[in-house]
Amino acid sequence: MFDFLQRQAVKAGQAFGVVTYVGPQKDFASSIHIITYNVDQIQERTVSAQEFSLTELPENSMRWVRVVGVHDTGLLERIGQSLHLPSMVLEDIADTTQRPKYEEGEDYIFMVVKVIGYDEEAKKLAVEQVSIAITQGVLATFQENERNVFDGVLERLRRGRHRSKLDPHYLFFSLLDAVVDRYVVALGVLGDHVEDVEETLLEIQTEEALMNIYGLKRETVFMRKQVWPLREVLLSLWRKRKSKHVSNESKAYLREVRDHISQVIETVDSLNDVLTGMLNVYVSVTDLRMNQIMKVLTVVATIFIPLTFVTSLYGMNFENMPELHWRWGYYIILGTMLGLALIMLAYFRIKKWL
Amino acid sequence: MFDFLQRQAVKAGQAFGVVTYVGPQKDFASSIHIITYNVDQIQERTVSAQEFSLTELPENSMRWVRVVGVHDTGLLERIGQSLHLPSMVLEDIADTTQRPKYEEGEDYIFMVVKVIGYDEEAKKLAVEQVSIAITQGVLATFQENERNVFDGVLERLRRGRHRSKLDPHYLFFSLLDAVVDRYVVALGVLGDHVEDVEETLLEIQTEEALMNIYGLKRETVFMRKQVWPLREVLLSLWRKRKSKHVSNESKAYLREVRDHISQVIETVDSLNDVLTGMLNVYVSVTDLRMNQIMKVLTVVATIFIPLTFVTSLYGMNFENMPELHWRWGYYIILGTMLGLALIMLAYFRIKKWL
Amino acid sequence: MFDFLQRQAVKAGQAFGVVTYVGPQKDFASSIHIITYNVDQIQERTVSAQEFSLTELPENSMRWVRVVGVHDTGLLERIGQSLHLPSMVLEDIADTTQRPKYEEGEDYIFMVVKVIGYDEEAKKLAVEQVSIAITQGVLATFQENERNVFDGVLERLRRGRHRSKLDPHYLFFSLLDAVVDRYVVALGVLGDHVEDVEETLLEIQTEEALMNIYGLKRETVFMRKQVWPLREVLLSLWRKRKSKHVSNESKAYLREVRDHISQVIETVDSLNDVLTGMLNVYVSVTDLRMNQIMKVLTVVATIFIPLTFVTSLYGMNFENMPELHWRWGYYIILGTMLGLALIMLAYFRIKKWL
Amino acid sequence: MFDFLQRQAVKAGQAFGVVTYVGPQKDFASSIHIITYNVDQIQERTVSAQEFSLTELPENSMRWVRVVGVHDTGLLERIGQSLHLPSMVLEDIADTTQRPKYEEGEDYIFMVVKVIGYDEEAKKLAVEQVSIAITQGVLATFQENERNVFDGVLERLRRGRHRSKLDPHYLFFSLLDAVVDRYVVALGVLGDHVEDVEETLLEIQTEEALMNIYGLKRETVFMRKQVWPLREVLLSLWRKRKSKHVSNESKAYLREVRDHISQVIETVDSLNDVLTGMLNVYVSVTDLRMNQIMKVLTVVATIFIPLTFVTSLYGMNFENMPELHWRWGYYIILGTMLGLALIMLAYFRIKKWL
Amino acid sequence: MFDFLQRQAVKAGQAFGVVTYVGPQKDFASSIHIITYNVDQIQERTVSAQEFSLTELPENSMRWVRVVGVHDTGLLERIGQSLHLPSMVLEDIADTTQRPKYEEGEDYIFMVVKVIGYDEEAKKLAVEQVSIAITQGVLATFQENERNVFDGVLERLRRGRHRSKLDPHYLFFSLLDAVVDRYVVALGVLGDHVEDVEETLLEIQTEEALMNIYGLKRETVFMRKQVWPLREVLLSLWRKRKSKHVSNESKAYLREVRDHISQVIETVDSLNDVLTGMLNVYVSVTDLRMNQIMKVLTVVATIFIPLTFVTSLYGMNFENMPELHWRWGYYIILGTMLGLALIMLAYFRIKKWL
Repeated sequence: MFDFLQRQAVKAGQAFGVVTYVGPQKDFASSIHIITYNVDQIQERTVSAQEFSLTELPENSMRWVRVVGVHDTGLLERIGQSLHLPSMVLEDIADTTQRPKYEEGEDYIFMVVKVIGYDEEAKKLAVEQVSIAITQGVLATFQENERNVFDGVLERLRRGRHRSKLDPHYLFFSLLDAVVDRYVVALGVLGDHVEDVEETLLEIQTEEALMNIYGLKRETVFMRKQVWPLREVLLSLWRKRKSKHVSNESKAYLREVRDHISQVIETVDSLNDVLTGMLNVYVSVTDLRMNQIMKVLTVVATIFIPLTFVTSLYGMNFENMPELHWRWGYYIILGTMLGLALIMLAYFRIKKWL
Repeated sequence: MFDFLQRQAVKAGQAFGVVTYVGPQKDFASSIHIITYNVDQIQERTVSAQEFSLTELPENSMRWVRVVGVHDTGLLERIGQSLHLPSMVLEDIADTTQRPKYEEGEDYIFMVVKVIGYDEEAKKLAVEQVSIAITQGVLATFQENERNVFDGVLERLRRGRHRSKLDPHYLFFSLLDAVVDRYVVALGVLGDHVEDVEETLLEIQTEEALMNIYGLKRETVFMRKQVWPLREVLLSLWRKRKSKHVSNESKAYLREVRDHISQVIETVDSLNDVLTGMLNVYVSVTDLRMNQIMKVLTVVATIFIPLTFVTSLYGMNFENMPELHWRWGYYIILGTMLGLALIMLAYFRIKKWL
Repeated sequence: MFDFLQRQAVKAGQAFGVVTYVGPQKDFASSIHIITYNVDQIQERTVSAQEFSLTELPENSMRWVRVVGVHDTGLLERIGQSLHLPSMVLEDIADTTQRPKYEEGEDYIFMVVKVIGYDEEAKKLAVEQVSIAITQGVLATFQENERNVFDGVLERLRRGRHRSKLDPHYLFFSLLDAVVDRYVVALGVLGDHVEDVEETLLEIQTEEALMNIYGLKRETVFMRKQVWPLREVLLSLWRKRKSKHVSNESKAYLREVRDHISQVIETVDSLNDVLTGMLNVYVSVTDLRMNQIMKVLTVVATIFIPLTFVTSLYGMNFENMPELHWRWGYYIILGTMLGLALIMLAYFRIKKWL
Repeated sequence: MFDFLQRQAVKAGQAFGVVTYVGPQKDFASSIHIITYNVDQIQERTVSAQEFSLTELPENSMRWVRVVGVHDTGLLERIGQSLHLPSMVLEDIADTTQRPKYEEGEDYIFMVVKVIGYDEEAKKLAVEQVSIAITQGVLATFQENERNVFDGVLERLRRGRHRSKLDPHYLFFSLLDAVVDRYVVALGVLGDHVEDVEETLLEIQTEEALMNIYGLKRETVFMRKQVWPLREVLLSLWRKRKSKHVSNESKAYLREVRDHISQVIETVDSLNDVLTGMLNVYVSVTDLRMNQIMKVLTVVATIFIPLTFVTSLYGMNFENMPELHWRWGYYIILGTMLGLALIMLAYFRIKKWL
Repeated sequence: MFDFLQRQAVKAGQAFGVVTYVGPQKDFASSIHIITYNVDQIQERTVSAQEFSLTELPENSMRWVRVVGVHDTGLLERIGQSLHLPSMVLEDIADTTQRPKYEEGEDYIFMVVKVIGYDEEAKKLAVEQVSIAITQGVLATFQENERNVFDGVLERLRRGRHRSKLDPHYLFFSLLDAVVDRYVVALGVLGDHVEDVEETLLEIQTEEALMNIYGLKRETVFMRKQVWPLREVLLSLWRKRKSKHVSNESKAYLREVRDHISQVIETVDSLNDVLTGMLNVYVSVTDLRMNQIMKVLTVVATIFIPLTFVTSLYGMNFENMPELHWRWGYYIILGTMLGLALIMLAYFRIKKWL
């Protein structure tokens, strides 16, 4: 949660517009995947950072430049140059602590989104930044790591589906939809964990169970923070209907993505509500059990402490204690104590403690 | 609550505009009920999915196509074609996890609402999705299951009432009103449960009672989530007074429905407030009783523990304990202990613990 | 609070615009009081439902039709006809669960408000619905019961004051002001109860006192819900300055009423805040007292339990216990125990438990 | 807090526009102080209610009519007549429960504000209503009591400062600033009390300290309610830049006052936050101490109760108890008990209770 | 937090527009640092307050007047005169309790911001006020103390970077960025402290740890209050795109600063959320442990108190107690007690207390 602080230190004191990589150390070389397609054919080319160059885009074609690894700022600057992206945009791409945003320039649109997965090992959500830009009729994506977020979209293109839609916005919204699908998957894992905890909620009252609920709550809050800005971005995109960047045809798709993200957020909120409810139940049940424990203690103690006093009384060694010499003294005392116990039991019964 | 997650998995990775059924497995065949009426007569026809076709709509008549079962996507597509509904609309109809929405297209209006009933067996609210579309002068409804939500409206039509009102919006708002009436019924059941719990609130302090309150609270939250979007939809419909789709005549009816839904939401909120209040009372009373229990324990223990010490003192077997041989030793000690007990009782009385 | 649910059942399944009485059973006949006045004279006529008819309204006169009892829907429909009120308005008048509303039609204005009184017997607020309509230069009021809400206004008219003001809005705002005055009276009773409870708050810590506070809180919440919509209605009336229905002259009066209702709501909120504060104090004080009780118990128990152990030790009957035969054994043990007790007292003093 | 209720009773049932004094009984006669000044000279005249009259205002002069005591409604009406103030304004002046407001009429502006002081005797905030009106080039102030709120402003005028500024708004904003200065002083006293309580927060855990915090919290809430409307009034004044009543020159002063009031409210909120924090600390610390107390009790009781059982066991008087006759029986038992105690101590150490 | 109150006392009763230093006593003389630069060269001059004067600004040059120490109001007034700053602006500069603000005049812009550092000694955030004004093509900064906030910016200018950008707004936003960088550093320290506390949260349950969390929470709230107004100022600056004071070129930089400050606030909020979560965990864990402690006490007490009663019973000295003379009496009693203990253990096992 404090990544922003630790990473921001890298940039403190720098002037504006300097492209600096902000993020964890990477040990692989950035690679570039260029996909050019139209309704008839699809061409793919994977090049290393050194070999990067862009050929002329054939007419009636669509190009997708897919960059994996944003830690090579030299490469970013070269790509930025050939795609005419301003340095501020490149700065945002290289800063993996950037919050989701949408920006429209003279001749480009640019978006930063967060891909969220559930890291089963660390038992927490993992987040990766993806930037998408449309400029010069080319769509470019920039990922931090080699994950397969966009493989489904690519696969559909390879199988020839939707290749007829050459509007870059169709591809843009398809990619966003793939990102949102990831959210749904991560949410599903969170949801399973919540249900696991819920089932044992009333049986196991340990610190571990409690910490589990708090941990899950933290994850949902974290997820909400990552997803929320995207919703804002999509809503504002939706409102700017007249924007020259979004064709009428693509708007229906935009609406789909917007609705999905709204549903994701609603589900995150539901999860959070459920967890809050669980915590409240937890606290209430803890209180109630405390009450029961105290009742048992009180009943046992208030019955036996006075009785023990009585027995202790006749255990005294005074010479002159006439009761001790009575014939039925012992039985009288036993009877008295039994009576006392019964009275107290009746009292507790009236008080509804038993 | 996590239905969205489990079901959404079905659609993850799909492209836009593909009509896919999302919902629980169904084991009955979809059926279609076509009602054509005007002021003079009413014609009804029930067909299976295979036989579906639409005859020409006679002049000055109104037609209601009532589809039960949205799991037959083939049928949906055929209906969509004859009514000129876009594939996005069909996708929403087939997705039973769709949230309530209202949409106006060039030549159709479309609405998704949730019907809510109380499932006495499962002891929780059951929700069913209903979609309503007006297109080509025809009103079509799509239900998940064979429930009798709209039977009252149909019955009124059969009895000849309101058949003179051929504006499809009159029928539209009548159907919405029937849906809202269902909400009121479900709320009534919830309300009864709340009152049942309330009556025994102070008497029975068990975990079960507590879980009952939390369960009811969850139901009201669930209900609110289902009903709230409908209110938004109706308010926005109301604001678009100039919409070509809503005639002046129908507006008064729209206002009625809008007012009813507002009252439903206010009642849900009231129920929720009452439940929150009950939880607070529960917690406060638990605390207060703990206090009383502790007072009893403390009074008994602090009186008898010192006294028992005294008796225990004179139960010691030391050879040289002169008090034991005093003539009135025993009585002096008894008196001392009585005095001690009285002092402590006075102290507790002052402290208001007794 | 759930009246809406129980009563609404009456209307479920009905079509729009049907005038149905919704409310508790009434056992008196509706009556009508017709007051016609101008600056010179005032004429009053009380008629039964059967005799109702309206004479021509003399020029430069003002007429107030005061209907008591809205359960006679036949009467309502006849009055509606002679005053040209639409059936939707009559439906609202007859539905005593209607929430406060303001409506402007072509040639009428219509308002539903709630009169609130404090029912000393049931120890809770009682609410009655009053509808006010201005149409055809006539002002009509519709009350559920024969209460004297508007007697003060009538009395002033009889005494000749303000009879010169023939704008029906002057009368309208006077009536609203009378309603708001009732709120103030009900609030005063609530306020007294709050102060009663407050005075004994720290002395009496019983469940009854707690339930009292919760009960009062519920009443304030209930009152707020009844009063709030009226404020909204008045604010929106105020904003529509240019409305043809509100003359410039009456506006100053409207402002007065609006300010009063704002002050009522602020006072309700203050009362609610005070009650919330009282609950917090209650809980905090309960906790604190628990703490003190536990301290007493702990101090007594931790001092005497070890001492009793010691005495019990020397009460054992072992043959070979040399201490028992020491000359000063008893005194040494007494001294030791005294020392132990003093040490523990010192410890508690340091811990600030004493 | 319930003054509004008690006082409002005076006016219930009255018609609009009747000037009635609402407030505590006063036992002094109203007095009027008329100050007329320009850059060259200042003239002061103090008259009783009976002698009141206004001379012609010399050209290029400014007049301030300062009325102390608003319980003489006859005087108010005479002043209102000579200054052409409408009766509604006079009604507001005489009603000391009026909330702060700002009003612009055709030829007057009128404002009601609350002056707040800290009454050291009653240990709570004291509030007084001040009304300010500008009309006919004259500024009039109306105070409830003879307090010296505006003495500083008057003193500056006497010393000749700012007498050149003849715009009545300059004087108006100076007076408002004097009122806000009073808020700062009252806040200062509250702040000191808060700091006093804070210093002893962790040491003294008594009901009195708790009630102190709640009392201070109540005062801050009270203050906020009194000050907040003034802020709204000033913000709305600020937004109406084009108002004919506020000259450009005076606007900078208005901004000053507005900024000060904003800072006052922020400080009130800070104080409230601090108090809320203190209450939370209080509760948490109470809980924690309870925990420690319970630990001590539990440790002592669970060590000695079993040991006492053992000793008590060998205090039984059975004839046939072979252990009693063992030579080392006593020492074996002593050793066993020591062992038991050590084991339990170790257990508590592991549990971190010691 | 109450600095505003203590310092404001200095100004109470003063008229508007008087330049008064409000802040802690200073014991150094104000100094002025004048930096004049263009793309080719940079000229620096440090003068004391007495020597201050401004030379003609060469064409195509930019000047930065850097004032350290705002307690010399005479100096402020002289600078104000040569830079044509109104006295209200000077008043704000000299009042170190001023909240952050942005102001545009006819020919100047003026901003007050707060620099925040973490004072490791006092273990709390330290705040210093910085004012920035642009007027007459000159940018002037006013700091309270000699801290090196702007050293980084100056260093970059000296090294010749960005000297070509002569728009004063570039420098303005660079300085703001330097201020925001300070926030990030302070946040980093806070974040480290939070993580320190978090690590030991479950192990150490002392009042000190609790007070630590509350202390950190207070610091984050304090920081938010200081930073929030700056965000508002930047957002409103951003919205006034058409402002004549902000060139198009500088806008991208403004956006950068705005985004940074948003991220700072999000991080502050995250920290606060984490701390709130920690407090909740703390309370829940305290409760849970109390529960466990009570269980141990209850188990031990309820097993041994009845047993001790039994032993005490047979320690009585009645003459006629036949059991005492039974041959196996002792062993029967021992067995009975063992059985009793086992039954109770079983009961506790069923209750899940063991």
